[in-house]
Amino acid sequence: MRLILLSGGSGKRLWPLSNGSRTKQFLKVLKNEQGERESMVQRIWRQLASVGMMDHAYIATCSAQVDLIRNHLGGGVPIIVEPERRDTFAAIALASVYLYSEVGVPPDETVCVLPVDPFVETTFFEKVKGLEAALERTGAQLALIGSKPTYPSEKYGYILPDYEALSGHPEAFLIKGFVEKPPEKEAERLMGAGALWNCGVFGFKLGFLLNLLKERGYPDEYKELTARYSSLPKRSFDYEVVEKAGLMVSVVYENDWKDLGTWNTLTEEMEAPVLGKGIIDEDCLNTHVVNELDIPVAVLGLSNIVVACSSDGILVSDKAASQRIKDLLHTVEHSPMYGETRWGQYTILDFSRLEDGRETLVKKVEIQAGKNLDYGFHKSRNKCWIIQSGQGRAVLDGRIQEVKNGDCLLIPERTKHAVLAVSHLVLIEVQTGKDLMKEDSVLNLSDWIEIGKLGQSD
Amino acid sequence: MRLILLSGGSGKRLWPLSNGSRTKQFLKVLKNEQGERESMVQRIWRQLASVGMMDHAYIATCSAQVDLIRNHLGGGVPIIVEPERRDTFAAIALASVYLYSEVGVPPDETVCVLPVDPFVETTFFEKVKGLEAALERTGAQLALIGSKPTYPSEKYGYILPDYEALSGHPEAFLIKGFVEKPPEKEAERLMGAGALWNCGVFGFKLGFLLNLLKERGYPDEYKELTARYSSLPKRSFDYEVVEKAGLMVSVVYENDWKDLGTWNTLTEEMEAPVLGKGIIDEDCLNTHVVNELDIPVAVLGLSNIVVACSSDGILVSDKAASQRIKDLLHTVEHSPMYGETRWGQYTILDFSRLEDGRETLVKKVEIQAGKNLDYGFHKSRNKCWIIQSGQGRAVLDGRIQEVKNGDCLLIPERTKHAVLAVSHLVLIEVQTGKDLMKEDSVLNLSDWIEIGKLGQSD
Repeated sequence: MRLILLSGGSGKRLWPLSNGSRTKQFLKVLKNEQGERESMVQRIWRQLASVGMMDHAYIATCSAQVDLIRNHLGGGVPIIVEPERRDTFAAIALASVYLYSEVGVPPDETVCVLPVDPFVETTFFEKVKGLEAALERTGAQLALIGSKPTYPSEKYGYILPDYEALSGHPEAFLIKGFVEKPPEKEAERLMGAGALWNCGVFGFKLGFLLNLLKERGYPDEYKELTARYSSLPKRSFDYEVVEKAGLMVSVVYENDWKDLGTWNTLTEEMEAPVLGKGIIDEDCLNTHVVNELDIPVAVLGLSNIVVACSSDGILVSDKAASQRIKDLLHTVEHSPMYGETRWGQYTILDFSRLEDGRETLVKKVEIQAGKNLDYGFHKSRNKCWIIQSGQGRAVLDGRIQEVKNGDCLLIPERTKHAVLAVSHLVLIEVQTGKDLMKEDSVLNLSDWIEIGKLGQSD
Repeated sequence: MRLILLSGGSGKRLWPLSNGSRTKQFLKVLKNEQGERESMVQRIWRQLASVGMMDHAYIATCSAQVDLIRNHLGGGVPIIVEPERRDTFAAIALASVYLYSEVGVPPDETVCVLPVDPFVETTFFEKVKGLEAALERTGAQLALIGSKPTYPSEKYGYILPDYEALSGHPEAFLIKGFVEKPPEKEAERLMGAGALWNCGVFGFKLGFLLNLLKERGYPDEYKELTARYSSLPKRSFDYEVVEKAGLMVSVVYENDWKDLGTWNTLTEEMEAPVLGKGIIDEDCLNTHVVNELDIPVAVLGLSNIVVACSSDGILVSDKAASQRIKDLLHTVEHSPMYGETRWGQYTILDFSRLEDGRETLVKKVEIQAGKNLDYGFHKSRNKCWIIQSGQGRAVLDGRIQEVKNGDCLLIPERTKHAVLAVSHLVLIEVQTGKDLMKEDSVLNLSDWIEIGKLGQSD
């Protein structure tokens, strides 16, 4: 069995902590058994490892998330990169063809697709394993996981199982239909009739999907499909495959399954009411603070609220209303002030633009030990680096120098520059010039060896 | 008649906008008739000017507030500086002696003392003027202003007037007692009995206070009293004078009188619900955002709350609970991140300390046109200035250079430096060294002429 984990998301519902570059699965608001903070993607990867499934898992995502995934899971994690965002059908098709033509997975092997961010007990993955037996015993084209609803949610999709149709298979039930996000009354009726929450997990034989692509005239070779990626329909797997499939069965998962996609559901899983600097007065019940800023938050006399702060903004919301942030954001002018990258992370401390267009940008840049900024130059901006902590090896137009706390480097425009973090390196970068929020780096790929040598020179 | 305006305060109840250096009277959250933002101290000064009393007003304050007062009211405002904070009796005694021995005010002139931050109609100052007549007609030692209560407040002091005792003086009533901060029931009873809120305004003949000081063995000469200031009792004027005085009368003020000392009362006087970057969803009623940060605040599903943000911290509070912030603050670790000075203002963008004590401090510094930083050097810190906007004239060890957007100046330790803002100048300052939160400047007063010349050299 192979697993495909889909990592996507727009990053709006958990604003201001999530943004275009850091979607919800990368927020480190959970805790592992050792009490260390972990993200949803780290949690699922840890869970897969604990049930021996990690070695058969692949992550399908877009190029914007590749650095983040490697930061969270390490450099060795296998990633299948979508050439562009084209919804789940295209992503699953590309990943399937990759498994077949690049990894050599045979057509009769089971493939299970799951979101990268469900909040579940580890027993959930035993159910994922069980999809293989369900497919083989029932001969179904697709096997899904349905979770026993705990309340009549209006936000989930429902699977309607026929508990009688397949009496010979006690753990897998025929699916007779689906209902998407019903109103509460209808959801109550569905619950009473034994309907299940659709967990978004799809099990199938690799050959099933390869045949489906073949019928539609798509290649089963990875590079060829990559080249034709933009011709794949931009639609969901549910629309393109599930709704048109033949026999489908569902396995039932009876423990906690949650989509931590809103502040309301996410804070329920937080161990402590305050993450970061903050204090909540005793008279506040069920109130949470998630604060990534370096200044304290004080909450007084307010229950059932969430306060979330990042360098992108500050959300203060009644928990039940927090899902509406997505709509409100259209009216908030904001650009992301925090980003995670291949080499670490940065926070924008200050940005100003004069009437004549000249700008100043102050960034705090953190580079992980052993990583380096790309070697290149800017066409029209000057930079100043002041080293805050850590040891580094900087190169300016080929000249290498060791840098440490207190050192100040001036980098005029068109000066090639990079820095390697010998230990975890933090620096303040002040840029001056025009269009500083846009990338104007010219990377010197021919000089890669030069910067590559930095890490090995002692 | 002379007015003494007392400017004090600890800056805790309006955290995070107020702090030790910027107390509530300096918060620019009100608006004047032209729609410009103004502070409480600017409002009262404008009101005094409108009734022709400004030229007879003096501000008594401590040295920490002198720069702020000059920034808000201009350089010409007469300030009487307390050598140290010693409560209101000492402050009023020093100001009175200053009026007598430095200004030459005769003992039979009326002096009125009032707080610098009451929120009142301009008619209030007509009542202040009326204190002179009240003193003269009744022969009272002290004349106070009592405001008609609008609700049974537990937070104010009450004046108990005898409306019958002085029937010949229709506008001034004998005071038969005081009640400080009564519980609500008692306050209701007092209201019913015609008690008035004590506005903290005291009118007296200058000679009355000079005699009182003389009886206690204190001098009536300003420099002498300044030298003996620390021997004055550290008690309130109420305790030392009002409670021991003979005949006292009260004038009644019938319009709005408010102490904008809590977020609850302050936001009532704000014209718009949002000051700064922010959005309040339609379902929020009577909710206010005061945001000095450069990132947006979004509020959803919460009524009757205040969200106040500054570089010192973020307050999220039910309005009725907001006065309790003073108590909660004891448990919040914070140091002021924003300050106003003689030359302008600064905000701390980032501060970090390594294990070995080495620190980095990033500040955004704004210098008003025509003002300059003091010329001096640091014993053990390096600085880097990057000019963000405006025109300046910098001097490093005597060398003068013009600076503008994008310029970067390196200032090693022991380098004498200053900058004059030719136009409003904003710069990013990055300091590296130890104990950066403490002042280690060595000012070169003998070089004052040098920096003084900067402003005149073209």
